[in-house]
Amino acid sequence: MPVDRIDAIVSLAKRRGFVYPSSEVYGGSRSAWDYGPLGVELKENLRRQWWRSMVTGRDDVVGLDSAVVLARDVWAASGHLTEFVDPLTECQSCHRRFRADHLTEEHGDGSTALAELSCPSCGNRGTFTAPRNFNGLMRTYLGAVEDESAEHFLRPETAQGIFVNFLNVLQSSRRRPPFGIAQVGKSFRNEITPGNFIFRTREFEQMELEFFVRPGEDETWHEYWLGERWRWYTDLGLSERNLRRHEHPADKLSHYAKRTVDIEYRFDLGGKEFDELEGIANRTDFDLTTHSKASGTDLSYFDQESGERWFPYVIEPSAGLTRGVLAFLLEAYDIDQAPNTKGGMDSRTVLRFDPRLAPVKAAVLPLSRNPELSPKARGLAAALRKRWTVEFDDAGAIGRRYRRQDEVGTPFCVTVDFDTLSDNAVTVRDRDTMKQERVSLDHVENYLVERLPGC
Amino acid sequence: MPVDRIDAIVSLAKRRGFVYPSSEVYGGSRSAWDYGPLGVELKENLRRQWWRSMVTGRDDVVGLDSAVVLARDVWAASGHLTEFVDPLTECQSCHRRFRADHLTEEHGDGSTALAELSCPSCGNRGTFTAPRNFNGLMRTYLGAVEDESAEHFLRPETAQGIFVNFLNVLQSSRRRPPFGIAQVGKSFRNEITPGNFIFRTREFEQMELEFFVRPGEDETWHEYWLGERWRWYTDLGLSERNLRRHEHPADKLSHYAKRTVDIEYRFDLGGKEFDELEGIANRTDFDLTTHSKASGTDLSYFDQESGERWFPYVIEPSAGLTRGVLAFLLEAYDIDQAPNTKGGMDSRTVLRFDPRLAPVKAAVLPLSRNPELSPKARGLAAALRKRWTVEFDDAGAIGRRYRRQDEVGTPFCVTVDFDTLSDNAVTVRDRDTMKQERVSLDHVENYLVERLPGC
Repeated sequence: MPVDRIDAIVSLAKRRGFVYPSSEVYGGSRSAWDYGPLGVELKENLRRQWWRSMVTGRDDVVGLDSAVVLARDVWAASGHLTEFVDPLTECQSCHRRFRADHLTEEHGDGSTALAELSCPSCGNRGTFTAPRNFNGLMRTYLGAVEDESAEHFLRPETAQGIFVNFLNVLQSSRRRPPFGIAQVGKSFRNEITPGNFIFRTREFEQMELEFFVRPGEDETWHEYWLGERWRWYTDLGLSERNLRRHEHPADKLSHYAKRTVDIEYRFDLGGKEFDELEGIANRTDFDLTTHSKASGTDLSYFDQESGERWFPYVIEPSAGLTRGVLAFLLEAYDIDQAPNTKGGMDSRTVLRFDPRLAPVKAAVLPLSRNPELSPKARGLAAALRKRWTVEFDDAGAIGRRYRRQDEVGTPFCVTVDFDTLSDNAVTVRDRDTMKQERVSLDHVENYLVERLPGC
Repeated sequence: MPVDRIDAIVSLAKRRGFVYPSSEVYGGSRSAWDYGPLGVELKENLRRQWWRSMVTGRDDVVGLDSAVVLARDVWAASGHLTEFVDPLTECQSCHRRFRADHLTEEHGDGSTALAELSCPSCGNRGTFTAPRNFNGLMRTYLGAVEDESAEHFLRPETAQGIFVNFLNVLQSSRRRPPFGIAQVGKSFRNEITPGNFIFRTREFEQMELEFFVRPGEDETWHEYWLGERWRWYTDLGLSERNLRRHEHPADKLSHYAKRTVDIEYRFDLGGKEFDELEGIANRTDFDLTTHSKASGTDLSYFDQESGERWFPYVIEPSAGLTRGVLAFLLEAYDIDQAPNTKGGMDSRTVLRFDPRLAPVKAAVLPLSRNPELSPKARGLAAALRKRWTVEFDDAGAIGRRYRRQDEVGTPFCVTVDFDTLSDNAVTVRDRDTMKQERVSLDHVENYLVERLPGC
């Protein structure tokens, strides 16, 4: 993606209320971004699609919502206290800090030595310190005294909350492997270099499934979930040419993984064409066995049919919700030509969201501010609002209002005009084709129901 | 509420997967609770009802989702660094810590001196230290160095994220006062004495609306929101006799408030009959003016009609989502009599949730595990699952399965029996009346649509 395109999206996101820089009035922060009125609906729609597809639409997955702040014990057992580290290097000339692995990766095959590189910030060469391990956990203290027993950490992944609840879910939900536990929520990582808009932030949202299977069946289930997750993204509108699989090489696997495959998207950010959208890992029985040892509670599963006791293997499709928002924004962004009032063509910006993701499903537009049209339009908007997110806009020329809705991806504009007063019908305009159709007021809702399936 | 009743609910909540003690395998924590498969659906249903009622169903409120971790500057300006304190006292005999104001409140009118009270833990009298101010903000550091510029705090309320985004929302959403910005999300408070199940935890969820109005219209809007919020709770099933208004006395108002009225619920916890469910405050222009001063960005509103510039006053209905879950659990919990198979009556536990809140809308039960019944029942469950959260249960006697669904508040049980194979119909049983009706398989979905409005 050309730099000006991502800049255009960041600008549109702020101007129209998708994403704002966090704490902007205090100078802003690269650590996090805030989701505005349209962004919160877009993110919620994506979350809901995931939940439907992964939890309520299935017979073999249940949901969970566990705490963000967990005691030191949990992170000691999970390996995060020692293993959740990135190589930190500092330029001794300008004192900016970087991830050493990102610096070397960006300069080719990753084998380039740090000492040979020039600093992306000040340009000096040979100024980097030897990398040291920097732990990405964010620490806080609960209680009145800041001692080790009060030491807690914000979760860097939602997964551990699932593993420590495995037994409770098993006992209360009457499930047995193969089955999964899914969770959506905030995670926190003290990234050395947050950046690239909402791609890498210190506070972000994940959608994670831990799917528990019999050892030996793990590889088959891994393939199953790779297929399912790929289909989910393409079904919601990401094109195959912007997606690819990335197999983690054996020497770069996380400490818990037997195999990990990323679904990568063509983000085209920071000099990299493709980057991770979702990681799908075979975590083996690492987590359940380590938590069993550390907690003294047996988290194995007793298989009544075979009479055996075993630790389930875990397949983990771990998606970034906020990263997903970025992918769908990038995919939806388009500029085409639309007729103007002078008989010519103007370029228009349009977000071609799948209707299920569009933050606003329909806009109701009275042709002009008029004591007869406005109440009719407001009444229609109120009626449609019972079912969908609907905007009402009566400010400015109608063509301008269409552009405003195109720019935020609203699938349908419903115009109430002077003919409405006599024919009791309205004009429904399609975002993508820009075709208009006359629809009776009584049928507008059904008309939209048919064209907004799953919304 | 008698102690054994709340104990019964805590036990049911764990056994059936509503709420688990957090990190239980590591000895548990009073700081937080985790929401299991049914709890996460219940909480989500409550959140969704709030969002529909407060945001998407209205023309004058938009949503927001801002960051949890904010820089020191924000909390200095908001007053939280100095004002967000509770009086901490410690028993010098057993070294347990308490909130001094809670101790004196529980012993009558609040005027009782701390020195006269006996310690609730060890029973000794005259052992309390003089109260000191303890700040409830949870601190963490972002970046590689733990200095003051890296100091951040987890938000103790979602509201400040709304105020610092006021200008961005105003500019991008084309709204003008009176209008509101709503947010649902986690907040964190380092409570001295978390406890009473999910009533007081260090990590919890809030649903907050900041409604911006012209100064002088604030008192009228305050009354409006008091009425709206009361109606919302009763509409979803809280009975008027379990609700009351509590007006904060002038000398106990928060530093930002002109007037605050709580909606209290009869939680009957910790020796108190009524306690706060939602606080509805008139925050005046405190937040916008203090953030203007501290940030140097003018957050006033220019009223084009009158040509005046003013700081909007803010009415804040601030509800606890997790506290709401507890209120609706308490309200729904009931024990009545149901016929057993021997012609007599047994007591049954039933959660009488409003269908909109029920975590499972329908259960599909094949009368027995049978090669003809099971696939028919599974097919029906899969079809209904496209629309609602549906359980499938084929384990045990049918009466027992009805009880299992009653106990978690499922409004409808759909039984597939041997007659189904010939008459293509099923038996639908109502949770509350326990009446059964024969419904054609083709009409089950519509039958439920009619009886599950707004689900």
